[in-house]
Amino acid sequence: MYKKDIKNKNTAGRKPAKKSARYSAKKKTGDKVQIIPLGGLDKIGMNITAVRYKDSIIVIDCGISFPEVDMLGIDKVIPDVTYLIENADKVKGFFITHGHEDHIGALPYILPQLPVPVYGTALTVGLIKSKLEEARLGGIVKLHVVEPGDKVRAGEMKVEFVRTNHSIPGACALAIKTPIGTVFHTGDFKVDYTPLFGDAIDLQRIAEIGREGVLALLSDSTNAMREGFTPSEIMVAETFDRLFSENSKNRIIVATFSSNLDRVQQIINTAKKYGRKVILQGRSMENTIAIAQQLGYISIPEGTLAGVEAMKNYPDSKQVFITTGSQGEAMAALSRMANGTHKRVTIKPGDVIVFSSNPIPGNERAVTRVMNELAMKGAKLVYQDTHVSGHACRQELELIYTLLRPRYAVPVHGEYRHLMANADIARALGVPKGNVFVLTAGDVLSLTERAAKVIDKVTAREVFVDGLGVGDVGDTVIRDRQNLSSSGFIMVALTREKSSGMFIAGPEIITRGFIFVKESSEIMDEMKGVALDSLDYCYQKKIKDLSKIRSIIKKDMEEYLWNRFQRNPIVIPVILETDL
Amino acid sequence: MYKKDIKNKNTAGRKPAKKSARYSAKKKTGDKVQIIPLGGLDKIGMNITAVRYKDSIIVIDCGISFPEVDMLGIDKVIPDVTYLIENADKVKGFFITHGHEDHIGALPYILPQLPVPVYGTALTVGLIKSKLEEARLGGIVKLHVVEPGDKVRAGEMKVEFVRTNHSIPGACALAIKTPIGTVFHTGDFKVDYTPLFGDAIDLQRIAEIGREGVLALLSDSTNAMREGFTPSEIMVAETFDRLFSENSKNRIIVATFSSNLDRVQQIINTAKKYGRKVILQGRSMENTIAIAQQLGYISIPEGTLAGVEAMKNYPDSKQVFITTGSQGEAMAALSRMANGTHKRVTIKPGDVIVFSSNPIPGNERAVTRVMNELAMKGAKLVYQDTHVSGHACRQELELIYTLLRPRYAVPVHGEYRHLMANADIARALGVPKGNVFVLTAGDVLSLTERAAKVIDKVTAREVFVDGLGVGDVGDTVIRDRQNLSSSGFIMVALTREKSSGMFIAGPEIITRGFIFVKESSEIMDEMKGVALDSLDYCYQKKIKDLSKIRSIIKKDMEEYLWNRFQRNPIVIPVILETDL
Repeated sequence: MYKKDIKNKNTAGRKPAKKSARYSAKKKTGDKVQIIPLGGLDKIGMNITAVRYKDSIIVIDCGISFPEVDMLGIDKVIPDVTYLIENADKVKGFFITHGHEDHIGALPYILPQLPVPVYGTALTVGLIKSKLEEARLGGIVKLHVVEPGDKVRAGEMKVEFVRTNHSIPGACALAIKTPIGTVFHTGDFKVDYTPLFGDAIDLQRIAEIGREGVLALLSDSTNAMREGFTPSEIMVAETFDRLFSENSKNRIIVATFSSNLDRVQQIINTAKKYGRKVILQGRSMENTIAIAQQLGYISIPEGTLAGVEAMKNYPDSKQVFITTGSQGEAMAALSRMANGTHKRVTIKPGDVIVFSSNPIPGNERAVTRVMNELAMKGAKLVYQDTHVSGHACRQELELIYTLLRPRYAVPVHGEYRHLMANADIARALGVPKGNVFVLTAGDVLSLTERAAKVIDKVTAREVFVDGLGVGDVGDTVIRDRQNLSSSGFIMVALTREKSSGMFIAGPEIITRGFIFVKESSEIMDEMKGVALDSLDYCYQKKIKDLSKIRSIIKKDMEEYLWNRFQRNPIVIPVILETDL
Repeated sequence: MYKKDIKNKNTAGRKPAKKSARYSAKKKTGDKVQIIPLGGLDKIGMNITAVRYKDSIIVIDCGISFPEVDMLGIDKVIPDVTYLIENADKVKGFFITHGHEDHIGALPYILPQLPVPVYGTALTVGLIKSKLEEARLGGIVKLHVVEPGDKVRAGEMKVEFVRTNHSIPGACALAIKTPIGTVFHTGDFKVDYTPLFGDAIDLQRIAEIGREGVLALLSDSTNAMREGFTPSEIMVAETFDRLFSENSKNRIIVATFSSNLDRVQQIINTAKKYGRKVILQGRSMENTIAIAQQLGYISIPEGTLAGVEAMKNYPDSKQVFITTGSQGEAMAALSRMANGTHKRVTIKPGDVIVFSSNPIPGNERAVTRVMNELAMKGAKLVYQDTHVSGHACRQELELIYTLLRPRYAVPVHGEYRHLMANADIARALGVPKGNVFVLTAGDVLSLTERAAKVIDKVTAREVFVDGLGVGDVGDTVIRDRQNLSSSGFIMVALTREKSSGMFIAGPEIITRGFIFVKESSEIMDEMKGVALDSLDYCYQKKIKDLSKIRSIIKKDMEEYLWNRFQRNPIVIPVILETDL
């Protein structure tokens, strides 16, 4: 039936759109909604999407992404919000779907430039608040706590928060009502009929919104390539129960994301049942749990938590650690336990280490390295059936498409292949081919009730954060780092007397990352010889221009190095000139 | 029964050992066999193991490993064979189990230093020959072609090649008979009752060797953590058949390892059945298939192969490509197709790309990057049920342990956790705990009929190959590369006049990989200022020693950089001195 409805979209008979059209009196023919993703496409992370109706803009999420392996030395990646800054007077606020880093992490960088209100459920706002305070930005903007079901007016739009399920409590979808129709953004979601904390996703309200008519659906593509239904978090409970019961004499250490609060709750519940004390390890774990506990988003029975210093009061069989480091992060608590540098916890034979998360692509080697180190210390590793995803699989997406019956489908939150898989689902469910838009960051998708088109492209780069520097490391610097990392550099330093034009010091060869030098002074002599030959050539040819001399030295040296070593270190000739 | 037998090992009743003891008249009480792995433990790759009896040494395999992500700029890693060189007069030969890189790849580096005969089946030797010729080492040693069942005398030992299954034809286990018992090395193996090429693993002979008595079993640990039985290669045939039949109008491109000859055979068989021409892409693919075809290890029906230039004569529906690049390798044919730089092949919507291998840990991001690029060009990606492993799972290992009933078990070929899992299997099958040895590279395990012990440790490092350099890049250079890659460097260059002690040129600041400089001349000025302040301090304090001045400049600059940027580039002060 849905298929049929959609196919008749050009006839007068389509009820939903009609109803939606009645939303506002202000609507005129030709009015349009723009959807402008500024990140979160092509790769997972850095979610940020603007929705614009006339002079009102709202921004959904504002996250970071973690650097790719070839972004050497980069700490995090944040979105370029030039478009928002240029339209700052129109931006009504940030509407945050949930409290994960890839949805809130860029706020401390963006809010100082764009101080507009932020809206989210209590836990989301709690996590943002803590993040802003850490960056000494407490109070920079008003943070509004909303509840699922709340509607917030934002200029000529109205934003409704709709309860969903994910791996953190307080996750919401957003239904953005505009005079020409509703834009529905799922946020990160799954359909969990038996969630651990709170209620199941509000399918009734979603169905109602669908009946009222949906112009566009922006939905989570992460698991669109996976068939079926993501298992409920409750499934993991069974694994934990079995693990605790089978290893009743051993110390248990569970590694997971601090932001996976549902998982932490699971472990606490199981610990309580088996009479174990819970010890939290890792700064982000302790922070996040403290915030969640304070806001009532996690329930920790009295006397269950223990400090690491109290460990000695309890036998192994009465301890369970919840720790950061499930991704093999070098500085996280689990890595320090694995390589023996953790101050308080020494891994010993019999310890049971549970990996309760999947490695994020790119982290596999780091994770297996930690696993091997733990295995060498005699620990038992467990990583099967200890995790379920927080994202919807194909069948859940089918359910949401069917409930919402959008006119237009815009897959978000995924690599390109995930977006494509989500687009396939939309088409399979009857959204006409021309109404499905796989966008790239910066695309301005303009929607009316009758037509949709990408009409413009705004700036949407990745901005690198390195230490305190934001955006001062660009592609050139990264390319230099890549070259330096593969073969190091060789510098040829010389001093020329300005008055005489004579070289009065050098050539000195300085090298790092190229070759082990102490054992190779013969090679140093060879390189000096190459530089002297270049100078000789310049002298013979009466070449006096410094930049020409530099380029001759560079060329000769590179040729020598390639022939001798088949390597390409960066060659940097430096000629100092005296004042006189 | 096996369990019982083993447990009675200290009583006189153990038949197998007795029989084995009769092997040689030369045996004396106290004689021992030494097993010395020089690589291949802790990580997968770089397989090489020495077996010594008195003055005879044989070497099993001689492979490379691929660099870890943090081994920046390294091309490959080869074993340190100092122990073998020091005992060169005793080394009787290399006995190669099969023709994969991690078993043969280091021969061109090692044979020039240790020119001893090499033994292997025809395909193995064919691949080694081609490798040596490419390195201009053709004829450096005698290459002996053996057949499964052949026995080769090697000093006081005798080596029997025993047919196994793997993902390349001609794979063998080795049964090494010594006067005090047989050492059995499985090589890389699986038990495939329905192999694609040749016969199933010679279980009858393995059983017979078991009945004769086995002193030690060295077995492939790769899949020891996986339950059950590795599926037969024939399973993949069903997937390919379905793929070819469902996509009868589209071009099909299959990416796999050139060394996975069984897989290549599969694709050729399916292509033949569906009347498609096969086009090989990638140098290693073309080379390996040429060698295999020449030696009769692959069967390509007349007229099935076509050159890439003949493509235009056939419609898409009549083409199938077999290409390198299944691991996302940047320069491989598939990557070039994906990023649009392949000269002959342009990916277009409808193309079906089959990934017929699992990503090696560490390659996941590269593989998904290629997948996304292909998806963006409209290609359909297939990677489910398109691959089976070439390594034995738990149940196959159980079978081999049960047939061979070794006195001692030595897991090989795996990361630590895989070796531990294999050790668990050995113990579960009754090998006494004290008879299971999880070794690290360089351990000298000494075995007698009554006792076993690690008695020594020989050199067993990883030697880095970078371009033409072998071993000239060590830990220091790698550490420099790591530091350079994360924050680049800053050099402060100065010239001092020897006679006066005055600084007559500089400070000049040279930097790469730190910050984008053009936009930051203010920062350059700041840095010069920092250096001038350091010089000023030295002048005030009458510090004239060059190395002291350098270290003061370095310290001041590092402090400035950390406070200003929270980064740690390498700071290198260079002071040139004039001759006069």
